[in-house]
This record gives sequence, C-alpha cells and structure tokens, in this order.
Amino acid sequence: MCVLKMTLAYDGSRYSGWQVQNGPRTLQGTLEAALADVTGESIRVVASGRTDAGVHAYGQVVGFATESTLAIDVLKRAINASLPEDIAVLEISTAADDFHAIRDARSKRYRYVIHDADVRDVFARKYCWRQAKKFDVAAMSRAAAALVGTHDFCSFQSTGAPRESTIRTVTELTVTRPDGMNQGMIVVEIEADGFLYNMVRVIVGTLVEVGRGAKTEQWPEQVLAGQQRSLAGPTAPPQGLFLVAVDYGD
Amino acid sequence: MCVLKMTLAYDGSRYSGWQVQNGPRTLQGTLEAALADVTGESIRVVASGRTDAGVHAYGQVVGFATESTLAIDVLKRAINASLPEDIAVLEISTAADDFHAIRDARSKRYRYVIHDADVRDVFARKYCWRQAKKFDVAAMSRAAAALVGTHDFCSFQSTGAPRESTIRTVTELTVTRPDGMNQGMIVVEIEADGFLYNMVRVIVGTLVEVGRGAKTEQWPEQVLAGQQRSLAGPTAPPQGLFLVAVDYGD
Repeated sequence: MCVLKMTLAYDGSRYSGWQVQNGPRTLQGTLEAALADVTGESIRVVASGRTDAGVHAYGQVVGFATESTLAIDVLKRAINASLPEDIAVLEISTAADDFHAIRDARSKRYRYVIHDADVRDVFARKYCWRQAKKFDVAAMSRAAAALVGTHDFCSFQSTGAPRESTIRTVTELTVTRPDGMNQGMIVVEIEADGFLYNMVRVIVGTLVEVGRGAKTEQWPEQVLAGQQRSLAGPTAPPQGLFLVAVDYGD
Repeated sequence: MCVLKMTLAYDGSRYSGWQVQNGPRTLQGTLEAALADVTGESIRVVASGRTDAGVHAYGQVVGFATESTLAIDVLKRAINASLPEDIAVLEISTAADDFHAIRDARSKRYRYVIHDADVRDVFARKYCWRQAKKFDVAAMSRAAAALVGTHDFCSFQSTGAPRESTIRTVTELTVTRPDGMNQGMIVVEIEADGFLYNMVRVIVGTLVEVGRGAKTEQWPEQVLAGQQRSLAGPTAPPQGLFLVAVDYGD
C-alpha cells in the first residue's frame, strides 16, 4: 500500500460542492468513481477542505491510500482519461504514510474575482461576481490591509460549521485590478493558516460594501473588532471563488 | 426609422452557429428574438459574417433598421437584459442609412487559441484546441510569416461556399505564446481584408502540422503556392476560434 498526494483543478459550475452526498453530483464522488475505475479499488479520498457548490479550484489537494502499483505518470494519465473534462489531475506524488490533507496543511490561498462593468463578460460569467457599478479598488485595498494578521475572525464566518477556535492568521490580503486581465476584473487574493466556514466569501462581501461606496474603508476593521457575524457584509456568491493552492511546507 | 450598428460578444458553445435555421438554436435567431422582445418589431439583422457552430466572438458587428425611439443606452441595457448570459451587446451606435455590415467591412481580425499541455485546462476547455505534445512556436511563427500579403488562398478554404475570387490580403499573421496567459497557450492572430470559408481554421490546421514537427516550416508556403485544398492540413476545430473585431474605417 502507498499513500499518494494529488493536486486537482476543477470547474465547480456543474457540481453540488466537494463532499459526497446521496444523490447530487459532487467532486469527491466523481473523483472516487474515477479512482475505482482505474484501480479497481474502493478508495476514499481526504481533501484539504471542502469547497461549496459552484466554487472552483486551481490547486485542491487530496490524499488517499492505494494498492495500485502503476507508475505515477501512468496513473495520472489514466485518472485524467476517466475524469470528466471539468476536473483535471495536475500532479501526483508519493506522500508519507501518515499524510493527512487537512491536518498537515500549513496554509491555503484563495482568489475571488469581481467584475465591475456595465456589460457582462460572456466568457467569465461563471467565474466572477458581476457588479454593474465601478468599484473603488484603492479603498478596498486599504480596507483589506487592516484584516491582515492574527485576529478572531468570528465576524467573517457563516454559521453551521463551528470551530473550536475562530482565531486565524491572515498572511496576505490584497485587492488589485491586474494588468493582464480584462480591465473590468478585480482580484481579491488571500492567504491564511486556515479559514472559517465561508470566511473568504464574507470578507469579500464586506469589502464590496467599501468598493461600491456604501461603507467607509475603516468599516471592515470595525466589523473585525465587533466580533459578530451580523456586523459584516453579505456572503459573496460561490462562482467567483477559487482555491488556488494549499501549502504543506514541502 | 434609423439604422444601428451593434457590436456583440458571444460564447458560441451552445449555438448551432450564427445563421438562422429551422430548429436549432442560433445566435442570429436569439438576437432577433431579443430585438423583437425589446422593440416589438420584427427585425432582421445583417452580421459582418456568419460564424460556424462553436465559434466565439469578442466583437461581431451587426447592422439593422428600427423604428425604435429609445435612447441608445436604454436600448443597450434592454437588449442585454433580454439576451441570455452567453451573448452581450458591447456597443450600439447610429450608422449611415446605407450601412451594410458585410459590404462595408474593410478588414477582420480573428484569434485562434491552441493549448499544448499534457493536462487539459478545465477553465479554457471550451475555448481552445488542446494538443498533448509541446509545439515549436518559433517554427510556426516563421511559417506563418510566409502567408502574409496578397495571395490566392484557395488551398486554405473548405468547399461549400464558392467565392468569385479567392485572392485575399492578409495584413497580419502571428503565432505567439503570450506572457500574461496560462503558459501552455499559443495564440494565432490573423487580420485580412476578407476570409474564405474556414480560411482561419485551415491555416491553423496547417500551422499545427509545423508546430508538432510533422511538416517543415517551408511547407505552408508550398501549400499556398500549390493552390489546392487537398495540400493543406486539417480544418482546426471551431471552439478555439474567436472573431475579434471588424474594421469599418471609422
């Protein structure tokens, strides 16, 4: 038996989220079906975290144990051939026998894309949150900077998945309008040692209030200090969110 | 009555091409239904050219006459609200009474995207032609340069739409691996005073033979000189092709 670590990209549009459920098509269920197809084994995978319905990934990481003796690159090709077009295995490597994709993660990086333009982008429509009004990105960026650091982020979570501690360390939180992209695109990039449930989407929903001028750029810091979910902005919709990478310190 | 010129972007994935047919969903049919919805008139539009099933546009141009007295920006918003998410009106302007979107076009620009990587890009899968082997872009670029100029392009067309003349002037034809994009993306950009049926897709299919090393970089020029469709490479698939812009000299 060996333990493998696998990096995946997926377009979450067609899926009811990561986790296996009875009935709806999920990413975990689809991946496990492909693994069974290739190895003949009934394999259960552990992902670095669940992504919600409609959320995408450039670099989700999963771990699993297999009896397969196929070479890594043969296995990668076979799994990719078995998976649908909207999921792809980017990399497979052998991991320590006790590798655990959740427990061993040191940090994660997410990206959220906002499109502020009066006309929709027909190609990006499933990969951004569109806002008809032009946003003040400089104000959003300054507001975001106040959230960087080690704080109690309990204002920025959805109920339903209580954690023992709501203290997290955000090492990066930037809001930019990247040069290379369609000029109507705003990218929120965030890295932390861990995230509360819907934390990125609630932070984005809060920064959007600043961007559209409904709140001052000091407001997100006040929401953080207030430590109540009811103070924060709405939860941004899932289709703008991408899990970019998970760092295991290797 | 006034004549309007409208610029459209569309994701062609769900459509059986531009032109109205009995039965299948087409871009022209969908646009004319939205125009009827907004104006109450039965409007026939003329596009700069038909795009085939699966082909996309950043800047298709159509002309039409209307009795509508709505302000241009109100009309634009109303049509966008009536159109499905994968079609968008980018711009509307008033045109001369005798404006004709085909006849008045001075030049057109197309883009074709090739993805040469061993693993698919889950987000770009509907917008590129994937090739598992790494391509020689420098050789493709030199081969492409030989096609620039005024030539008889009859080797680079599909049968089925005979033109009076098969002579066209290609003012630009470049093959690059753009910095800003996913590094596996190769972009073929072509501008000409007009295009024969499937001309871009046959040129791309021919350059791909050079890129993958099956033909020398001198070969496309020989195909051009040979003046027979049977000499050229295959017709590249539609999903990598984008109509970028149509120039009317204004």
